[in-house]
Amino acid sequence: MQVPDSFIDENKLAPLRGFSKLTKDEKIERILSHYLADGDERDAVQTLIKSFWHRDESLQKIFDEFSENTISNFYFPFGVVPHFVLNNKSYCVPLVIEESSVVAACARSANFWQKRGGFFARIIDTEKIGQVHFEWFGDKEILINSFNEIKKFFFLHVSDHTANMEKRGGGVRTLELLDKTDLMPNYFQLKGTFETCDAMGANFINTVLEAWAKLLKEFFAEDLNIIMSILSNYTPNSRVEAWVECPVTDLDDPNLEMSGTEFAQKIIKAVTIAKVDVHRATTHNKGIFNGIDAVVMSTGNDFRAVEACGHTYASRTGQYQSLTHAELKDGVFKFWIDIPMSLGTVGGLTSLHPLSKLSLSLLKNPTASELMMIAASIGLAQNFGALRSLVTSGIQKGHMKMHLVNILNSLNATDAEKEMVKKHFTTKTVSFKDVRDYMQELRQYH
Amino acid sequence: MQVPDSFIDENKLAPLRGFSKLTKDEKIERILSHYLADGDERDAVQTLIKSFWHRDESLQKIFDEFSENTISNFYFPFGVVPHFVLNNKSYCVPLVIEESSVVAACARSANFWQKRGGFFARIIDTEKIGQVHFEWFGDKEILINSFNEIKKFFFLHVSDHTANMEKRGGGVRTLELLDKTDLMPNYFQLKGTFETCDAMGANFINTVLEAWAKLLKEFFAEDLNIIMSILSNYTPNSRVEAWVECPVTDLDDPNLEMSGTEFAQKIIKAVTIAKVDVHRATTHNKGIFNGIDAVVMSTGNDFRAVEACGHTYASRTGQYQSLTHAELKDGVFKFWIDIPMSLGTVGGLTSLHPLSKLSLSLLKNPTASELMMIAASIGLAQNFGALRSLVTSGIQKGHMKMHLVNILNSLNATDAEKEMVKKHFTTKTVSFKDVRDYMQELRQYH
Repeated sequence: MQVPDSFIDENKLAPLRGFSKLTKDEKIERILSHYLADGDERDAVQTLIKSFWHRDESLQKIFDEFSENTISNFYFPFGVVPHFVLNNKSYCVPLVIEESSVVAACARSANFWQKRGGFFARIIDTEKIGQVHFEWFGDKEILINSFNEIKKFFFLHVSDHTANMEKRGGGVRTLELLDKTDLMPNYFQLKGTFETCDAMGANFINTVLEAWAKLLKEFFAEDLNIIMSILSNYTPNSRVEAWVECPVTDLDDPNLEMSGTEFAQKIIKAVTIAKVDVHRATTHNKGIFNGIDAVVMSTGNDFRAVEACGHTYASRTGQYQSLTHAELKDGVFKFWIDIPMSLGTVGGLTSLHPLSKLSLSLLKNPTASELMMIAASIGLAQNFGALRSLVTSGIQKGHMKMHLVNILNSLNATDAEKEMVKKHFTTKTVSFKDVRDYMQELRQYH
Repeated sequence: MQVPDSFIDENKLAPLRGFSKLTKDEKIERILSHYLADGDERDAVQTLIKSFWHRDESLQKIFDEFSENTISNFYFPFGVVPHFVLNNKSYCVPLVIEESSVVAACARSANFWQKRGGFFARIIDTEKIGQVHFEWFGDKEILINSFNEIKKFFFLHVSDHTANMEKRGGGVRTLELLDKTDLMPNYFQLKGTFETCDAMGANFINTVLEAWAKLLKEFFAEDLNIIMSILSNYTPNSRVEAWVECPVTDLDDPNLEMSGTEFAQKIIKAVTIAKVDVHRATTHNKGIFNGIDAVVMSTGNDFRAVEACGHTYASRTGQYQSLTHAELKDGVFKFWIDIPMSLGTVGGLTSLHPLSKLSLSLLKNPTASELMMIAASIGLAQNFGALRSLVTSGIQKGHMKMHLVNILNSLNATDAEKEMVKKHFTTKTVSFKDVRDYMQELRQYH
């Protein structure tokens, strides 16, 4: 294939060897001198990078050690929905998100539904999953029969690892041997299910699985080849349902420019489209995750795991589709989400990151199940807010109002200028060019 | 359903009304006094929240205005892979991620493949998609025939919005009317495709779509009902392919404890499992997004959009499966990823967030296409790193080494204690309990 001319100078890159062993200051200097051309700019950039360090050195050290080759902290806005009513409790929900209008949409939905009874949620189950993938080259019957005989040893063998989890009410739930040879030659699986209580459980599950893999190999020696052992992020039985509902007549709202029934029907059509059209389904669910991820991130949980799990679930029928549902039945409008996820409120970063610790305090230190209900409800609130905009005034009105602030900041607008520009664009379509032109006009005039 | 007893006191919550209008200081005070019980703790928390503000007030104001009801900044570690060879160029790739060992795995893969020719990538296409969803209650033929006659007006009607994009080589590519009445009664779609150059293009596309929806309604009046207009985050034709390859004999590596051929075969089996087993596929792809999202976040792009797009693509055959592929053919091992995504290097937060601006500088200000290639390659590198660990030493060895640091920090270990504990656990399984016990032993002894 055609590739651009090389600009790799091996000698010049030699100093990058051993990079991970350098101090943070040395790392910054090395990469800036290698990758930023201009010397003057380098000084300014170095100052910028350091300006994002936390002023408390020992705290900064903890952030540095969360990951590798760290040179600074990336800031994400930490916002709140101050009064979110779920299961008749009021929560202050912390949201970490860079996309404008997500917090506003959640807060508006919270307010809308608070007047109509609030959000409700329940846990379906909290079962986690782990797999040892291996090949078996011997007689199938021998494997299956021996496994049934030795199965109890697998529980005993990991009792050191499971003792603490059992004290908290968790541990290994089930263990089974699965014949997968129809999918790949010689392919078998040990599949475990787990209860990990308030922990997300990845380390616990992976440790148990690797111990099982070792035991398998010890039992069956050369007839067996371990391929890999790891938890599954797809946990369809660690699932939560959240909903809002009210008599459709209660949806009448002077801001909607249509009757409550018409509004309900439009929402239902929008959800139906997200079930039958994959292009819409993706964006629909993306909006749900705008809300869910913001809760997940604020509490030090892993949003990649939550995204992967939810999207896989959205595709479980063979047609990728909406994670939310809507119906109008016997005069009652109901809107709900059904989504699997695995969250933790202990372990990992949850208490190590001072702000995820704060998030959990603001939420009154929820259990993992409670956090699942909060996250799912916020996803539902976000989806409701997005659909409400989409089927009424359109998404751009709110988006551009927020985006206008970003444009103004990028043009270094003063507060006075901001006020004038906002007023001017109240009824006009916002574009970067139009805002810039209007700003120029203003500046020439004054 | 059963819900917990209410603890909502409407009077107590009244002060939360008008929350969004309060100053940042007032917001913090209100939520702490409502949601944190202890007065002394409140002062400490207030100080903590403020310690995360940027010391430059005007910069902090920009962060505050990215979103709504913001009270602070959430820190994510900003790390780098200092020398990532892609298409014969060396990149310093910024990664924003809180999960330990992701940067380390990418850096190791970068190093491994740099010695074997590096990573390669190419863009398949960069087509974006937008949809106007509507109902048509009249005669189908009338809609279809009229649309063909008036189609050119749709292009003209948005020429104000598209002029700038066209100057940069983009704009509306195609526009078609789709009959979707087999999916929902009366359901039709205007489907546009767009080229948005170095912008992600959401605002541009949504503005054009809303203008089209308005025009449709003007043309067809009461026979037509607009449901909603919005871009699609599922862009299967905005796609990138990245790969590594080498003679299988070049995979021989003393660290692997197996021959290059055995290693290649194990990787291929692991990828095959991620194609046939949905539980494995989810976790496999989750690992890919560990890398991709870290690039996406570091450059101010929207990771929810990238996740939703990639996972939908992973389910396109009806079976959710691996986004990466591996083969051993004619003595050559090839490992590649094929993934759609929409990224921008202008607009949005890209230049507004000082650190995403820095990330783009470190990457030598790439085009959006170049950034897609970098992100996909980092996803591939991350997946290779994860698979390599999984099929050789297991994932826990590396994970727990990093996790040990977090445990030590949570126990306030001194540097001297850290050294001793790390040494002790070199050959032992790490668990929170064991580390704590050993620390206690150490502290009693000294």
